[in-house]
Order: sequence, then C-alpha cells, then structure tokens
Amino acid sequence: MKDLIDKAEILIEALPYIRRFTGKTVVIKYGGSAMSDATLRASFALDVVLLKSIGLRPVIVHGGGPQIGATLERLGKSSTFVDGLRVTDDETMEVVEMVLGGKVNREIVDLIQQRDGRAVGLTGCDGGMIRVTQRLVADRDLGRVGRIVAVDPSPIIAVTEGGFVPVIAPIGVDDAGVTHNVNADEAAGAIARALRAEKLILITDVEGVKDRGRRLVPRLSAEEAHKLIDEGTIRDGMIPKVECCIAALESGVGSAHIIDGRILHSILLEVFTDGGVGTLLSC
Amino acid sequence: MKDLIDKAEILIEALPYIRRFTGKTVVIKYGGSAMSDATLRASFALDVVLLKSIGLRPVIVHGGGPQIGATLERLGKSSTFVDGLRVTDDETMEVVEMVLGGKVNREIVDLIQQRDGRAVGLTGCDGGMIRVTQRLVADRDLGRVGRIVAVDPSPIIAVTEGGFVPVIAPIGVDDAGVTHNVNADEAAGAIARALRAEKLILITDVEGVKDRGRRLVPRLSAEEAHKLIDEGTIRDGMIPKVECCIAALESGVGSAHIIDGRILHSILLEVFTDGGVGTLLSC
Amino acid sequence: MKDLIDKAEILIEALPYIRRFTGKTVVIKYGGSAMSDATLRASFALDVVLLKSIGLRPVIVHGGGPQIGATLERLGKSSTFVDGLRVTDDETMEVVEMVLGGKVNREIVDLIQQRDGRAVGLTGCDGGMIRVTQRLVADRDLGRVGRIVAVDPSPIIAVTEGGFVPVIAPIGVDDAGVTHNVNADEAAGAIARALRAEKLILITDVEGVKDRGRRLVPRLSAEEAHKLIDEGTIRDGMIPKVECCIAALESGVGSAHIIDGRILHSILLEVFTDGGVGTLLSC
Amino acid sequence: MKDLIDKAEILIEALPYIRRFTGKTVVIKYGGSAMSDATLRASFALDVVLLKSIGLRPVIVHGGGPQIGATLERLGKSSTFVDGLRVTDDETMEVVEMVLGGKVNREIVDLIQQRDGRAVGLTGCDGGMIRVTQRLVADRDLGRVGRIVAVDPSPIIAVTEGGFVPVIAPIGVDDAGVTHNVNADEAAGAIARALRAEKLILITDVEGVKDRGRRLVPRLSAEEAHKLIDEGTIRDGMIPKVECCIAALESGVGSAHIIDGRILHSILLEVFTDGGVGTLLSC
Amino acid sequence: MKDLIDKAEILIEALPYIRRFTGKTVVIKYGGSAMSDATLRASFALDVVLLKSIGLRPVIVHGGGPQIGATLERLGKSSTFVDGLRVTDDETMEVVEMVLGGKVNREIVDLIQQRDGRAVGLTGCDGGMIRVTQRLVADRDLGRVGRIVAVDPSPIIAVTEGGFVPVIAPIGVDDAGVTHNVNADEAAGAIARALRAEKLILITDVEGVKDRGRRLVPRLSAEEAHKLIDEGTIRDGMIPKVECCIAALESGVGSAHIIDGRILHSILLEVFTDGGVGTLLSC
Amino acid sequence: MKDLIDKAEILIEALPYIRRFTGKTVVIKYGGSAMSDATLRASFALDVVLLKSIGLRPVIVHGGGPQIGATLERLGKSSTFVDGLRVTDDETMEVVEMVLGGKVNREIVDLIQQRDGRAVGLTGCDGGMIRVTQRLVADRDLGRVGRIVAVDPSPIIAVTEGGFVPVIAPIGVDDAGVTHNVNADEAAGAIARALRAEKLILITDVEGVKDRGRRLVPRLSAEEAHKLIDEGTIRDGMIPKVECCIAALESGVGSAHIIDGRILHSILLEVFTDGGVGTLLSC
Repeated sequence: MKDLIDKAEILIEALPYIRRFTGKTVVIKYGGSAMSDATLRASFALDVVLLKSIGLRPVIVHGGGPQIGATLERLGKSSTFVDGLRVTDDETMEVVEMVLGGKVNREIVDLIQQRDGRAVGLTGCDGGMIRVTQRLVADRDLGRVGRIVAVDPSPIIAVTEGGFVPVIAPIGVDDAGVTHNVNADEAAGAIARALRAEKLILITDVEGVKDRGRRLVPRLSAEEAHKLIDEGTIRDGMIPKVECCIAALESGVGSAHIIDGRILHSILLEVFTDGGVGTLLSC
Repeated sequence: MKDLIDKAEILIEALPYIRRFTGKTVVIKYGGSAMSDATLRASFALDVVLLKSIGLRPVIVHGGGPQIGATLERLGKSSTFVDGLRVTDDETMEVVEMVLGGKVNREIVDLIQQRDGRAVGLTGCDGGMIRVTQRLVADRDLGRVGRIVAVDPSPIIAVTEGGFVPVIAPIGVDDAGVTHNVNADEAAGAIARALRAEKLILITDVEGVKDRGRRLVPRLSAEEAHKLIDEGTIRDGMIPKVECCIAALESGVGSAHIIDGRILHSILLEVFTDGGVGTLLSC
Repeated sequence: MKDLIDKAEILIEALPYIRRFTGKTVVIKYGGSAMSDATLRASFALDVVLLKSIGLRPVIVHGGGPQIGATLERLGKSSTFVDGLRVTDDETMEVVEMVLGGKVNREIVDLIQQRDGRAVGLTGCDGGMIRVTQRLVADRDLGRVGRIVAVDPSPIIAVTEGGFVPVIAPIGVDDAGVTHNVNADEAAGAIARALRAEKLILITDVEGVKDRGRRLVPRLSAEEAHKLIDEGTIRDGMIPKVECCIAALESGVGSAHIIDGRILHSILLEVFTDGGVGTLLSC
Repeated sequence: MKDLIDKAEILIEALPYIRRFTGKTVVIKYGGSAMSDATLRASFALDVVLLKSIGLRPVIVHGGGPQIGATLERLGKSSTFVDGLRVTDDETMEVVEMVLGGKVNREIVDLIQQRDGRAVGLTGCDGGMIRVTQRLVADRDLGRVGRIVAVDPSPIIAVTEGGFVPVIAPIGVDDAGVTHNVNADEAAGAIARALRAEKLILITDVEGVKDRGRRLVPRLSAEEAHKLIDEGTIRDGMIPKVECCIAALESGVGSAHIIDGRILHSILLEVFTDGGVGTLLSC
Repeated sequence: MKDLIDKAEILIEALPYIRRFTGKTVVIKYGGSAMSDATLRASFALDVVLLKSIGLRPVIVHGGGPQIGATLERLGKSSTFVDGLRVTDDETMEVVEMVLGGKVNREIVDLIQQRDGRAVGLTGCDGGMIRVTQRLVADRDLGRVGRIVAVDPSPIIAVTEGGFVPVIAPIGVDDAGVTHNVNADEAAGAIARALRAEKLILITDVEGVKDRGRRLVPRLSAEEAHKLIDEGTIRDGMIPKVECCIAALESGVGSAHIIDGRILHSILLEVFTDGGVGTLLSC
Repeated sequence: MKDLIDKAEILIEALPYIRRFTGKTVVIKYGGSAMSDATLRASFALDVVLLKSIGLRPVIVHGGGPQIGATLERLGKSSTFVDGLRVTDDETMEVVEMVLGGKVNREIVDLIQQRDGRAVGLTGCDGGMIRVTQRLVADRDLGRVGRIVAVDPSPIIAVTEGGFVPVIAPIGVDDAGVTHNVNADEAAGAIARALRAEKLILITDVEGVKDRGRRLVPRLSAEEAHKLIDEGTIRDGMIPKVECCIAALESGVGSAHIIDGRILHSILLEVFTDGGVGTLLSC
C-alpha cells in the first residue's frame, strides 16, 4: 500500500512536466562517461527514446575527443592543444570528420535504434547548418577550429518532422565552404538557441554547479551564475559550460541544465522530477 | 540514490503507457466512496485533470442514488425497488432529473474545475445522446426506468473537441422524447462502446473481481469471466458490472477495469502502472 | 395570382436577410408567455430549429422564476425579494440549481429536439462560463445573487461547432467556485457580447418600447433610448432590458431586439421581415 | 396581425427549401418572353441574384433564335429550317457565334450585374465544355448543327467557385475543333447532368405540362411523363422539353421543372414554395 | 558532341528562368502579324501552351481592329478615326462586341485548344472586370470609347485557378453598365497591374525599341525610356506602348517586354533566354 | 536568326520533359570519373542543383571504393576481393564507415552546397533505412558485406520534404544492428524502388549499353536487355548494372538510365532531351 502511494506521488509529480513539455524541443549535449560506459550508454538511449515516445523532441549533439585522439594516434599523428583546443591542420581535420561523422555519430544513431528509437545522423555541414569563422586564441592560428556565428536549424527541423531523433556532430563550415572543428557544448548551446528549445541539457561527469562549500546548487539564476563566476566559485572547465547555458537562456531557451551523466537515467530524472540531478539554470 | 533509482523505474514503467494512451478516450463510471468521501473526491478530481492534461480524453459518467433518495425523503416521497431498480413514477423522475442533472452533475463539474480542469455537464438527453426503451423486469412495469438501445456520441465529442471533460448524468430519452432513469454502469459501458474508447473504468467499493479463494484477480479474459459467472464465483452486484465490461470489450473497447475507488489515485495507478489496483478485463 | 405575387414579395423581402445572417450568432433570452403557453412554446421551438437549419447560430438563455417559486413553495420555503431580486440562501440556491439546470433547461432541450432540432443544455458553471461576484443592492447582502464580471464563451462555441443549439441556465460561479443566481436578461446580454453576436433578442410579454403616446417605437438608436430613459418614458422593468441592449450594442453586437413573445413566430418575423414585431435597437 | 401570420407561414414554408438547397446547383434554361419582356427580364435577374446570394449555385443557359434571325436578315441572309432546326452553313455559323457569344450572352451578364450579381459569360467552346458530333435529321445534312456527346463541367465549376454566375451560350465543338449550333434546352439538360445539378429549370412560355383536360399537372413522375407522351397528351414542342427533363432525372439530377416564364419571379416561386408555378418532374 | 554542349548550355541558361517564373503570371497582348499569319499563330499557341504546362500563368489580351473593320464594311458602315481611335456609336459598338467577343476571342480559344491547351474566353464586362469612363480626346466625344479606371481581376483568377488560360477581349463597362471599346495594349497593361503580374509582354510588328542609331535596345530602364521619349527617339505608335510598360513597372509588374511577334516562338525566347527578342523594360 | 530557331527548338524539346517530371523523384548513382574529375564534379553538382531548382527531387547515392582503398593503404591494411567484392572484416568496416560516411559523403554535400544547393548527408543506417543480410558468394564468408532486403524511405522523404537533396552512403544494417558494406548501384536501385522514383540514373564511365556491333543502344526494353545478357552481348560489369535497372523497372520505377558520366551535364541531357546521352531502359 505504501508502495502504491509512492508510485502515485511520483506520477503526480511527473505528469505536469509531461503536459508542459509535450511537443517541446530538448537539446542534449552527450559526452563523457555517459558515452564511454556501456550501462550508462544504454540508460541514455532509453531516456532519449522515452522522451521521444511521449512527444518531446530530443536533439542530440555529441563530442568525440577521445575517439579522435585514438585514431590520430593509430595514424601516428600527434596533436598540440592551446587552451584546451586541438590545433587542427588539414590532415587532422580529415580525421576529425571521419571519426565524428563516420564513426561516433553513427554509433549513437545505432545505440538509439537498438532501443526501438529512430535516429538520423547529421553534421553541422548538412544544409549549411553550423556556420563558423576561424577561432583565434590570443591571435594564435589554431588551424581549422571554428567559432559559431550562425545556426540554420532547418535540417534539424526536417529530420524531427520526419519523426526521427537528430544526432549532430559538431562540425561547422565557413563562408568558403571550409569545414572546421567546433566545441560540442558550444554547438549544443547555439542549436538550442536557433531552435528556441525548451531545454538545453549538458551531460557532464560532475554533480553540477557547486557553491563555495562544494555543495551542489540545484537551481541558479543567470545573475547568480555570473556572480559565482566573478567570485571564482565557478572555475576552470565549468566556466564555458555555465556561460553557454547563460547565453542560451538569454536567447529564449526556457532552462539550461548541467547534469551528472554518471547517474542512471539522469535525463529522465532531471526532466520529470522536482528535484532533478544537477543544476538547473533559468532566468 | 536508491530514491532516484526508484523514481526512474517508476517513470520508465509509466512513460510507455503515456505514449500508448495519448489521444485515447477513457470512460470512467464515478460513484461510491470515491464520490462520498472528501479526500477521495479530491484524489479523483486530480486524477481526471492529470489524465486530461497529458492528452488523454476522460469522460465521466456518474450515478447519484443516495442523493436522489435523500431529496425524495425530504419531499416526503418513498420509493419501491424491484431487483435493485427504483420504481420511477413521473414525480420521482422529476426529482431524479433535478438531483442528477441540477445538483450531482454540477457538483462534479465544480470539483474538476477547482483543480484547474475544465468540465461541461451533460445529461443523456442532450443531443438525444442516450436513447432508451422502457425496461421491464419480469413483465413488471417499473415506470420510467430505461434500457439503453443506442448512444449518439456527438455531444460528447463536441465537448471533448472543445477541450472540456464531459460529465454525464445517466438519463435517457425514448422515441417519444420521454425521459427515463438508466443505470450508470450500463450508461458508462454503452458510451464507451459508442466512442470506441480505449478503456472503460468502473470505480467501485470493492477490490475487484475475486477468485474462489477470495483473492483479487488482476487480469481476466472475457472467456474466463464468463466461466467465473457460470460457476458462481462472480455473483450478485458484480455480475452486471462484469457483463457490462464484457459487452464493451466485444464492441471494440480496448480494455475494461473494475477498480477499487477507496484507494487514493486509483485511476492513475490503474492506467499508468503495470500492476494496477483492481481487475483488468481484456479480449 | 395575387397570392403568388404576395408570396414572391415576402420571399424577396426575406432572402436578403437570410444572406446577411447566415453563419451569424443570435442570442435569444427566452421567458414569459412564450415559455408558459403550449402553442407559443411550439412556435418558439420551430423558429429556433428553422434559424439553425438555414445556417444561423441561435443560442438560448432562459429564466425560470415561476418554476423556482413553485418548487420552493412545495418544499415549504418562502422567499424575500429586494428590488425584484430573490434573496438566495444556500438552501434556496440548491433549489435554483436543481430547477433551472435539472428541469427547466432540460425541458427546453426536449422542446427543441421534438421539432427535430438538436440541443445541448449548459449552465453558466460549465467550463467556468459565467464568472460573477456577489451583487449587493444598497449594501444589502442578498446571498448568492451574482453580478456578471466575465463570460468565457468557449463551452458555447464547442457545442455550436458540434452542430447543437446551446440552451443556457443563468447560473454563475465566483472565484472561489461558489455558484450564484444571475438575471437571465443580463446573462443573455453578457453572452451576446462575449460571442460578438449579430443579434440579441429579448422575448418579453410587451409589444416593445413605447413612446410618450404609448405607440410602439419600431427602431431606436442607443442615444434615443438613453433620452427616453432620462425623460421617464421608458420606465420600471423596461429600463434594465433597454440598458442591457445598449451595453450589447456598445460591445459590438450588431443589433438588439425587444420583441413581443405573445405573437406566434415572433423570432422569424423579427429576423426576416423589414417591419419586425417589436423594437430594434442599433447604433 | 393577419398579415404577420401570413408572412410567418410563407417563411415557414420557404425556410426548409432554403436549408435543403444551400450549396446546390440549379441549371436554368433562359429564353422566351422572360428574355424579351423588360419587366420579366428584371424579375429573372433579381431571382438569379437572390438564389446566388443565399448560397445556391445558379447556372444560366440561354438561347437566342430571334436575335440570330434579326442579324441574318440585316445581313441579307435567309435561313432554311428542317424540323425546327436552322440549316447552318459556315457564314450562318459565324453570325450565330457573334450574336450568341458576343451580344445575347453579354447582355444577360449585364442584366445580372445591374442587380448587383456577378456573372461571367461562357460558350460551350470554352475549355472544350460542350463536345458535339454533327446532327443529321433523316440523313439530311443541316450543316453545323450539333448533337451533344459529352459535357466537361470544369469551366463552369471554375467560374462558380470564383463566386460568379456562369451564363452559357449553346455552342459546341466537335473533335476537329469545329463549332456547331446546339439546342439550348438540350444544352441545359446535358450541363445539369454533367454537374449532377439539384434542379433543371426550363423557362417556357406555357403554364407547364397539361393533362387531357388541358389542366396543369403540378407534379409528374418520369413514368407518367412517358405515358402522357405515348398517349399523345404531351405533344409537339413540349415533347423534347419533357424528354430532356426525363434524361436529366435518369442521370441523377434531383428534379426537373418546366415553368411559366410569364409569371413574375417564377423561379423563386418554383424553388421556394410548395405549390410552384409549373410542372415538377421527379423520379 | 558540339551539339550536346550547345544543348546543355541552352538548358543551363533556361532552367533558372523556369525556376524563377513558375507560378508567376505573364500577361500577353496578342495582335498584329502573330495573329494574322497562320504559322505565327501556331507558334504563338504552342508557346502559350508550353508556358502553361510548366507552371506559368499566361493571360492573353487581344485586339481585333482589322476584323472589326471588315465586318463593319460588310454591313456597309464606315468609321471615322480621331487620333487613331475609332469613333464608336451604338451600332458600331454592337459590332465591336460581336466581333471581339463572339468571333476573335473564340478563335483564339480554339487556337490554344487545338494545341491541347485549355482556354476560356472572357470580355472585360465579365464580373465587371474592366471598369471605364468615357474617353474624351481634346474634348471631342468619340462615343463609346473608354478609358480604364479600374480592373477587378477576380474573374481572371477564377479561370486561372480552374487550370485554364484566360483569353480577354478589350471591352469595358462604365458605372451605368454601358459597354465601351478600350485599347488592347492599355487593357493588357491594366490587367498586368491588377494581377501584380511578373511580366507584361506586348507582341508587336517591330523589333523593339530603337535608339537614335535605329539599333535595337535590348534593355531599358523606366528612366531611360522617359528620356528617349522626351528627346523624340521613341515616337508615334511606340510612345503609348512604352508608356503602358512604364505604368506597369510602376505598379509592381516585374518587367515589361516589347517583342517582335514576327519571330517564331518569340515568347519562349523572350522568357527563357538571356538575350531575348525585343526590348525588356524594368525598374 | 538560325541561333534563335535552334534555341527555340531545344526549349520546345525540353519543356514537355520539365512539365512531366516536376515533383518527380530521380535517384542518381554517382561515381567514377564524374566523381574524380574536378570539371565533371562541378558539372554534376550544377545539374543536381538545377534539377532541384525546377522542382524535381534528386536523390544521390554514391560509392567510394578508391577512397576506401587509399585510406586502408595509409593504415597499412590490405584487402582481398572475391568476385569484385571487398572482404570486409570489422577493422575494414570501421574504415569503410569513416571514409564513406565521414569523408566522401560530406564532400558531395559540400560540392552541391557550393553551387547554392542545399544537401543533407545520410547513410543507410539512418532511421534503419537500408536493411541487409550478410551476402555470401559461393558460400564464402566475405565478412560484413550485405545484400539489401528492404529499404525504408522515410528518412529520405523527411530530408526531401525539408527542401534538401539527400546524399546517401551505401551502408546497411542487419537485424542485429550490425553495419555492412553494400554495393552502391544496388543501393541506388533499391532506393529508387522504395521511393517509386520516376527515374534511376546510373552514372558510369562507359557510353551506355552496346549492341553486337559495339554501337550504343539508346533505348532498350527489359525484355531486349534480358536477351542481350543471355546472348552474351551485355557482359562483365555491365550485367549487374542492367539487372539493377530491370529490377527497378519491374518495381514501378518509370525508367532507368545508364549514362556516360564523362560527358559534361550528362544528367541534364539525359533528362531533358529526346536523344539523351546513354541507354534508357523502360518497360
């Protein structure tokens, strides 16, 4: 009987979210342990398929740094990094495209399809979706590393209207049609903005944003986030993620989530429960 | 953490039902304790509003015997019953109509609206919805007690298309336009059939159908049900309920449920969990 | 031959009105002799069915004072009136609801359906249609007597779109969900305004508005009506009716009619002939 | 008061016809006195405009024998007739086309437009509408006189969908694209069949079909009509008209009317009153 | 092989025009040699049918001066001309209507239909399309010669929507419904403006607009055209044609073309090749 | 002038094809010189963009054998071939996927987009589009080489509906979700069948099908093709291409073309001229 009451309570908690999010777009940056661990991969795929099945519109943007590194190594080619960005010459870029577009992307499509979802892989070159200029870091030329200047969401919309989950590799093109490597978090944020998504979810390998006392902050306004960055509480790799979330909120995305991808079904829990499993940023 | 896993599991259990039932019609016979107890009333209303909010189409059919009895008594008028059916002369029928259509029906509409649902009350006379002939029991004339011969679902559809939950009082009209009292279970079944509903749910004051050992039978085929009636395991007041369910199944209703209205949120639990809270009859 | 010329002339007079009013909404306040006399009742029902059949959208709002009084009397409960308004305690309100919603409303639905029309009964509580606050008269508390503050026409539209004639009992709800008795003329006027109706027709037991010489005024502007009220030519019970019409005109209702319900087919004659049978108010 | 009752009765008689015929097509063969007399012309035009205004779809097919004769005479060209059909050489046909298509047709368009209708003139050549073969009478070659073999109603439908009354001159084309003169009654009948019209109305200069005692027959079945022809009661010029009506009925036209065009507003009276002003043929 | 390259180049030249003009309206003034010479007539008809077949919307406006003259002569009636305009009394107008509407128009319809096109003939009176006032030249009354004041394109649109090529005779009506003769170039220009056509094409018997050195000017802006008129390089009969084009451009017509109708397939060449066969005027 | 006549003739030849093929699907197998030569690549891309721009629906299926070979070589991995099929172990398949999906496919997308087309790259895994079983040759296990058993065209349709040209890499999945290499001609044929395409075009490095005298056969029926295979006139690598065409025709594809990709604009010439540039097979 206690069991029934618990079940009923969880349903009563979840149903209003379902009502609210039906037909809405959720852009999910997929990476880290959730992508490397087999159990977490299966959990991710099931979450995506369930979201889709009840009428939400998940859009997946993935990274693939480790896989790119492994292939480069196999080809006997080493990489230099500047500020965490891989210096990308033409030969490296060819490998990036082959690994992201031809391997990682397709594997995620398969993963979703093995759980009876239907997915279509895209890269940011398809339909000229992700438009970039070359990114310079302290005036240093990193080669084919791009900064996103615009996103044309029409290929994503076409695929979504067809009933599929779009899975997107973070590659962009410049005005001359030259492809560039782009950061996956940044790509997810820009796509969420272009789609006026309801949610942007960044799957990470940390619990979420922490306060000074290293305690998880479950909810955060853009303003508070700015303050935590300024005072140094949010630092290092978390800064670009939080900034990406803030930019999304400012462009009309309903909410942004930095969640712990090491928890099973973290997406479902974040979307359909009051507590969630990470940090929710909203205006 | 255990809590999160539980939540995720319940969601994973529930979401496929949501997917499956979106846009589907669920006809609910409302009565008994669920109608007389304030806590259960609130639980019922919330369940109905949640179903509606996530895209199902609940249709409520209610009884009102106790309220009719109370008003008749207040007017100093006594009733005779034959086989559980109230002998209904013209004066009694006028009271039946006033109590069911003018009081009970409106109170259920209010109950749903107080939980932010939107409901519209109807009687089976509206649009000539419930068409009846006089019911005779062993050739005895019970007055204006009707047997349903046809249901025109168009008024229910109009109200549902408008975004409202229809709440229906079990009154029917014969070919001459004379109103008759009809049994609420029978009305719910006939309406479910006319709407080709996905589900017919009868809310009762018992746990469900029991087997010989008085243990609850969670699932039952039409065939098995016939057998349990024949062998006398299903008996008395449960017989017409089960027969009403079987008739619905035979006319294309997806499943029929006899559930325990004394459990909080019994509707949600029956619709969205594998176990449910009563007996599910299907073909 | 003379007969044919007459017929042709009446058709030539009527057809342009038919063209003009097709698809338009006509809100009719039904009451008085037209409701108590059997021949007039049949004439009213036929008029409504004919209007509907050629593509107009009649909406009926009814009163029921005499029937409420009779039932209260039968229950041994007397009423006090202040300025023509029945002081309405909870017990009285229960009777009002039962009589208006459970008896009078249903009888009008039947009346229309007996002439092959299709009607659906509603009260102002359905879908929260008629929203009220308590009406105070000279600061005196009359109990559950409401002043209309808003009308949500969506339940009426749902029923009309479904092909039915809505028949509406003048009951309203306040913000707390408590029901109140409202004046039927006022309800008809507020509904006409919410629907941006083409016409508001008040069926009365007088010929129409009279001038100083007690001659019927066939046409009247809002301005002239104000003047006749100011100078005392329009007085007593006619004042609220005329004011209700003026308010409707000011909110975009095309025209308002105060007609003589004692004339057979008064609605048809008012709508489809140049002369009409009462007073037409327009801007 | 008597006047009001009369008006109401005529409306009650007419409204069901309006309901029944809304959106329906009525093909009218226009000719005779109704075309030559100024008062009757005005009456005809008003009837057509009123039919159109309340949602019927009138289609006019006209003759023009007298006008053709007058122009030929003016050009000093005489005609021979065989069985009432004008022997039509190329020069005559050129005159037929100019008079029917360039003069008579345009005058009818103007006539309708002067009463605020909107009309478009067509000939049977437009869009290859009326397809003919040469008509032979007792093996005699009458020149360019056609027998209708098919009607493609799409130009009529295009014009009607645009909101116009089509006015059609009875000219047809054969497979080689050569134009031919066709009988206007026959053209009206064939067009009514191709449009599956509700009604075919032939405006004549007689009262209608007469029985043996020379009394008007208000209603006639196809079978009875055949009998009256066989027994010689229907004879001469009335035979092809009646046969044209029968053929229309057999192809699914709802009813066919032979009416007296000398009566003012004969079309309105035939369409909207029980009695009508001629003979109604139906299956 | 050379042949294949040529073909490919012509296709590559033509396809972008096809893409650009699909669904667009092209108003063509038809007259001169293209109307009198049998080979050119066939070429014209094929061009129109091909334009229509690939999704453009050709609209034909024709003249007929020579044919009117011939018929008037045959009737022994002479004409006076003032500034190139035929003084038009009632009797002359009757002939104009019969010849333009009953003969020339129908022949063009046939011409198009013989090449498997589908055409419908209209005059400017149909649906009150071309509205005129009387044209006065130096205060002289020329009788029924009209100046166009407005064009209602709805009859053209109805015919085009139905899949037909509209063929329009240049006759207009004044407010009193009196028909007038109008200039065909002027009618084509006014119709192009009313339809917001993509192109206005005037088929002439000259090469196009010439410069001072009598060389063909392939492209001309409205401004340059004004200058050429002012300096006297464009003169006589070319002035009204160029002014008609300029007026069209100023009302939103995309481009106006004065082309040489003596060249086979001049319409196709002008529409689908870069060079064209006359003078293109654009803003 | 001769030039104008030539142009007109080519247009008159081409326009009916444009009419006929608008909205129709053309599946093009792209490979060979047309893919390796820069001028031919540009010509291909322009043809595809022009087809799309005038309303056809081109679908591109590409091969990539040489590029796969080059990458394998670079990785120091050699391949064995059986009957022209590459024996494909898991490591080879990973390279196939990366090269086809991540490099060749994306380059074709870019090629089209550089000519202002809009393309989206897909593989046969997307949406489970190309379903395969393992292909055995003489019972020899070639590893992950697939035989197509079904094509689900919905991802192609989604992309086409979105306004993009789909570019498809020939990779398939089996029931267990394992990817396989498939032959590009076979993939193009199966996709054409699933889409009920109007045309299947195989771009080759030969002139087309030759007869015994080694002369090009411009048109061939399925029956004649079978005969030429049986008698050994069609042999070697041409046999599977012709069989692929025949299978397409038998499944309702309108026509199949084996064309010479070494000719500039071979696609345009084949689609829009009577002669074409290869062999057309039809039923």
